[in-house]
Amino acid sequence: MWQQPTSLFTDHYELTMLQASLRAGTAQRQSVFEVFARRLPEGRRYGVVAGTGRILEGLEHFRFGQEQLEFLERANVVDRQTLDYLADFRFTGDIHGYAEGEIYFPGSPVLIVESTFAEACVLETFILSVLNHDSAIASAASRMCAAAGSRPCVEMGSRRTHEESAVAAARAAVIAGFGSTSNLEAGLRYGVKTIGTAAHAFTLLHDSERAAFEAQVASFGADTTLLVDTYDVEQGVRTAVEVAGPELGAVRLDSGDLVEQARWVRDLLDDLGNEDTRIMVTSDLDEHAIAALQSAPVDAYGVGTALVTGSGAPTASMVYKLVSRQNDDGAWGDVAKAAKGKGSVGGRKFALRRLNERGRATAELVGIGEVPLADANDRLLLRQFVRGGEVLPGWTGAEGVVRATQRHHDSIQEMPGIARRLHRGEPVIPTEYVDEA
Amino acid sequence: MWQQPTSLFTDHYELTMLQASLRAGTAQRQSVFEVFARRLPEGRRYGVVAGTGRILEGLEHFRFGQEQLEFLERANVVDRQTLDYLADFRFTGDIHGYAEGEIYFPGSPVLIVESTFAEACVLETFILSVLNHDSAIASAASRMCAAAGSRPCVEMGSRRTHEESAVAAARAAVIAGFGSTSNLEAGLRYGVKTIGTAAHAFTLLHDSERAAFEAQVASFGADTTLLVDTYDVEQGVRTAVEVAGPELGAVRLDSGDLVEQARWVRDLLDDLGNEDTRIMVTSDLDEHAIAALQSAPVDAYGVGTALVTGSGAPTASMVYKLVSRQNDDGAWGDVAKAAKGKGSVGGRKFALRRLNERGRATAELVGIGEVPLADANDRLLLRQFVRGGEVLPGWTGAEGVVRATQRHHDSIQEMPGIARRLHRGEPVIPTEYVDEA
Repeated sequence: MWQQPTSLFTDHYELTMLQASLRAGTAQRQSVFEVFARRLPEGRRYGVVAGTGRILEGLEHFRFGQEQLEFLERANVVDRQTLDYLADFRFTGDIHGYAEGEIYFPGSPVLIVESTFAEACVLETFILSVLNHDSAIASAASRMCAAAGSRPCVEMGSRRTHEESAVAAARAAVIAGFGSTSNLEAGLRYGVKTIGTAAHAFTLLHDSERAAFEAQVASFGADTTLLVDTYDVEQGVRTAVEVAGPELGAVRLDSGDLVEQARWVRDLLDDLGNEDTRIMVTSDLDEHAIAALQSAPVDAYGVGTALVTGSGAPTASMVYKLVSRQNDDGAWGDVAKAAKGKGSVGGRKFALRRLNERGRATAELVGIGEVPLADANDRLLLRQFVRGGEVLPGWTGAEGVVRATQRHHDSIQEMPGIARRLHRGEPVIPTEYVDEA
Repeated sequence: MWQQPTSLFTDHYELTMLQASLRAGTAQRQSVFEVFARRLPEGRRYGVVAGTGRILEGLEHFRFGQEQLEFLERANVVDRQTLDYLADFRFTGDIHGYAEGEIYFPGSPVLIVESTFAEACVLETFILSVLNHDSAIASAASRMCAAAGSRPCVEMGSRRTHEESAVAAARAAVIAGFGSTSNLEAGLRYGVKTIGTAAHAFTLLHDSERAAFEAQVASFGADTTLLVDTYDVEQGVRTAVEVAGPELGAVRLDSGDLVEQARWVRDLLDDLGNEDTRIMVTSDLDEHAIAALQSAPVDAYGVGTALVTGSGAPTASMVYKLVSRQNDDGAWGDVAKAAKGKGSVGGRKFALRRLNERGRATAELVGIGEVPLADANDRLLLRQFVRGGEVLPGWTGAEGVVRATQRHHDSIQEMPGIARRLHRGEPVIPTEYVDEA
């Protein structure tokens, strides 16, 4: 997965803070950092945690090798004492958090890092990069799947985002309910299903549309998907059926008014005897376009740009805040900044989801101190991912993706039905802060 | 830079098209693919090409190794003939394009790939991923720098985007005029300047704001930047000056009404005798917020979220289209699809920027055939990056970034002054298609 150290996916100031705290003797204070989002993107009803598995995979490669140390020295980023500290760096603390795929709300403590200040500080940027990107994609993807209902969504946005973001986006989309992706690297790394057939260039390469379809069917059989809108859609459908016969798997529409087109293409296919040939649509879809196609005879949605850009919310705006730390005498003190509009709540949190007797979520309870398990239906949300620096099994790789997909599926089932509707509103359940019991 | 093959940053269908064309005997047809954008993001006056250097770096690692081939076989993506072709894959064609940092307009042929269909086809996704991401960031960054005028902009958005996108975003921002970045990996890979001092967590770690400032000054000297808004800004500024004295480098404001705050913090600093202490602001800035701060006594802007998300346009919507290819008899045929709203113009393009007698750009000329160099001021825009598969020197690594930064600077100078204004409008110069002479 990671073939190089992940340690410099880091803001310069993480290391200058490390230097100053090492010099001041405060670097070794035990600390609690918390990741949370102050709010959801405008109008969204819930968010989806994604990226946790990737953080744990990256944590194992969070080391400062010769190349990194030489750079830090050459660029005069930190002093010798700090370089010596980094040369031996290895995270030795604990990490808890919401399981990947879990739904979150404003104030949900989605990740809690407990270690010395030094160790938690240098992880900040990397942790936020992964969570903010992957959660933004998963949150958008989940809404698209809700709009698509039982019809499968295919992730096809690789070309619209950074080449590595594309892999993470494919992974996040699958966790949030997409059935497959076009991204081959995601298939290699995470074992997710990949699909794809042909683009307009393949038709244009050949001397005619018919020649292109014949070439594709010769290679992949009749049960393939033919792209029929390079020239004229009606002629394209007719040619596709002539070439592939009644076994033609699907036609793909990638332009024009998809609702109207899907209707008459369906009629045409049926008239030609191709009742089992499916229709896939792929032109600039987002969750609203998918919802608008609900009554059209469409069998699958390919989603690109809107998915990989978070459908208007390309980052999840999660922050990583120091909420508690020891003094020199070992006493813990909860801390919080007062900066306007950017305040935080001090203390090491617990979190649970309150469910009613029918198993439906009614509130997100967040608090400090004893966990108030008053109701047997309450579900504890914090899971342990790292113990004493060791990543616990089951959260990473292909196994982690399968588990996260299941978690997301179960969490969505638990939400009030309104969560699956697209109209803008408040978070679907409120976040309630509970005082110490 | 690239430690692993880049070949699977690719859509599944690129390889199925390869398979079908190998079987049909059309894979070896010489082809011309062109990258262009049909339009700029809503209201933008120009775009900035970025990512070209990264494409060339990635091209050298575009190989199918054992791990990739085993995956493609295991996942049944392509057949044996195709696997054998990929095992020996190496791009042997030519690539021309706009120099990195160059300004582009709708229809500008920003990259032209000439090779067999097979070779150009498999590069599509990777090329578009890089150009669409990096150009989106550079295009936003250029507007921010225009709004900032002579005040430096610092890229600080790493935590708001995927960890690898963050590195590419830092690189693109510097090309478009940012003076530095917080991203250390970008410093390592591309030699760009990195900066950073401390976050709120550093203040909260210590027993008081004073103790935190003392620790920072003890380690980095008085000429550092102190973050003064963790508790009360006025008290923060007074404490900062008491601790660091008249040599205090800068204070950083990260919340609240920055225009108003910058004014009274400037007055306070001056009253305290710190006329040379600078003010840096960093709270959710975009190009419009920067413009609004024009009259405020601010010395530097730190930009995060808006930069790495392209300030509302996170992807550049460039496409990669087959525009010309040989038939079996070796004759070239220009090709273009007719799909509604997604048409393209066939043929291998030239491109030049028409300049008036004062050296100001007046039009983007794009055409097929002989280059009409009627006017001595015309500037040819297509440069060669790859010849017969060999990447030409000067476009990659730190050298490529320096060169691209200069190119962007020169191209902006050449634009009508209106290009540097933020209000929405048409592209600042028109794209004119020239018929064959």
